[in-house]
Amino acid sequence: MMEVLRDKNYINQVQIDCVIFGYEETQLKVLVSKINYKGDFYSLPSGYIYQAEDTDHAAKRILKERTGISDIYLEQFKIFGKADKGRKEFLDDLIKLNYPNQANRAIENPNYQWFINRFISIGYYALVDIKKTTPTPAEVDESIGWHNVHDVPKLIMDYNEIFEEGLKALKRDIDDKLNVFNLLPESFTMKEVQEIYETIFEKEYIRTNFQKKILDMNVLERLEKKYTGAKNKAPYLYRFRR
Amino acid sequence: MMEVLRDKNYINQVQIDCVIFGYEETQLKVLVSKINYKGDFYSLPSGYIYQAEDTDHAAKRILKERTGISDIYLEQFKIFGKADKGRKEFLDDLIKLNYPNQANRAIENPNYQWFINRFISIGYYALVDIKKTTPTPAEVDESIGWHNVHDVPKLIMDYNEIFEEGLKALKRDIDDKLNVFNLLPESFTMKEVQEIYETIFEKEYIRTNFQKKILDMNVLERLEKKYTGAKNKAPYLYRFRR
Repeated sequence: MMEVLRDKNYINQVQIDCVIFGYEETQLKVLVSKINYKGDFYSLPSGYIYQAEDTDHAAKRILKERTGISDIYLEQFKIFGKADKGRKEFLDDLIKLNYPNQANRAIENPNYQWFINRFISIGYYALVDIKKTTPTPAEVDESIGWHNVHDVPKLIMDYNEIFEEGLKALKRDIDDKLNVFNLLPESFTMKEVQEIYETIFEKEYIRTNFQKKILDMNVLERLEKKYTGAKNKAPYLYRFRR
Repeated sequence: MMEVLRDKNYINQVQIDCVIFGYEETQLKVLVSKINYKGDFYSLPSGYIYQAEDTDHAAKRILKERTGISDIYLEQFKIFGKADKGRKEFLDDLIKLNYPNQANRAIENPNYQWFINRFISIGYYALVDIKKTTPTPAEVDESIGWHNVHDVPKLIMDYNEIFEEGLKALKRDIDDKLNVFNLLPESFTMKEVQEIYETIFEKEYIRTNFQKKILDMNVLERLEKKYTGAKNKAPYLYRFRR
């Protein structure tokens, strides 16, 4: 089954794993796929690197395949290099559930050898405007969808750790890299920016202080007011100066 | 020549590159090796990962081999994944200088094939108390030594970029990870901490503000006064609470 995934032009024993964040209705979400076999096998989008391909390019290619977006904001945040990432155990579980009568388990089947090799993961996180995405399952996936970051299922192998570290890296980078605006549409109100910070950091900000902090960053361009019907209270729209 | 470096138990096409920082006489320094061939080929300490070895363990092993220190402070900060890192050009330059009469260049010699393969670098930076180190050249090195970070020679391949990114990561992490104390001896004065910050960030701090900032971190334990002869002005010694 799974040998179809491999291509001889890939670098062996290295993979790219993606923590793709989106934001919708004051919820921070992450893209999770469900593998197309019996059993609740959930995974993060991942893939491999061609011999002649820069790793950043490989990450963009994988992200485009799973989200439909070409020019995606991404950061390479950490590698996950434990010698034992539970690949063999995962494959064994999957085979037991799906091919219970198959005597030769993963370890004996030469077609699975590449999979149970030791792999080093390069973790990337990406930030997308969720409304622009078209989540697309990989060949091996049954489905792919957005999960609230507080409601991520048990993932296979070391993917829960990769997700947690991706979230930590996002929080660390936000003020430094000013990347939170990648989660928002082209134009937005200050209230929407505050809501996104409150969602990510799980705390409330005082409106005037927050507005000052953001405007002091000097990266927003003020546009016209947002028409809401109540003219006087119409908030300004802003755009991120790239 | 260079095939002696390879061991079949290493993971192919992945390497670890180390930016090792030390601090001495108000200078921030980095450990650089000179390769044992004709020509000024300078490099950062690097090595490979055994199949059954965690990457963090491999980094500690390499750092111990080059510095003599076992329990070294290190952070994995970035991978360097460009498909072309200039490995072939470096080897070609080295062969032209050292074996001018040798007709078969790197590209034709099967013994060099592993070297001109594409490699993905995992960058680690490390912080050491320079006085505890015994810099030790690798088999392929002529010498190894400390260079002021402002006086790093032209390095082979993409090592200057790796060094610069390592320095950037150190600056980014200092307040968050409180790791600067790893550059100092067991006990130190507040003046020494201030000097190290001033060296790394290349700016001056106001003594009282700086002292407040550091003490507010609540990670230092105050010890006895440092005996300097002039009793009244003797500064306190501090120790980092690990």
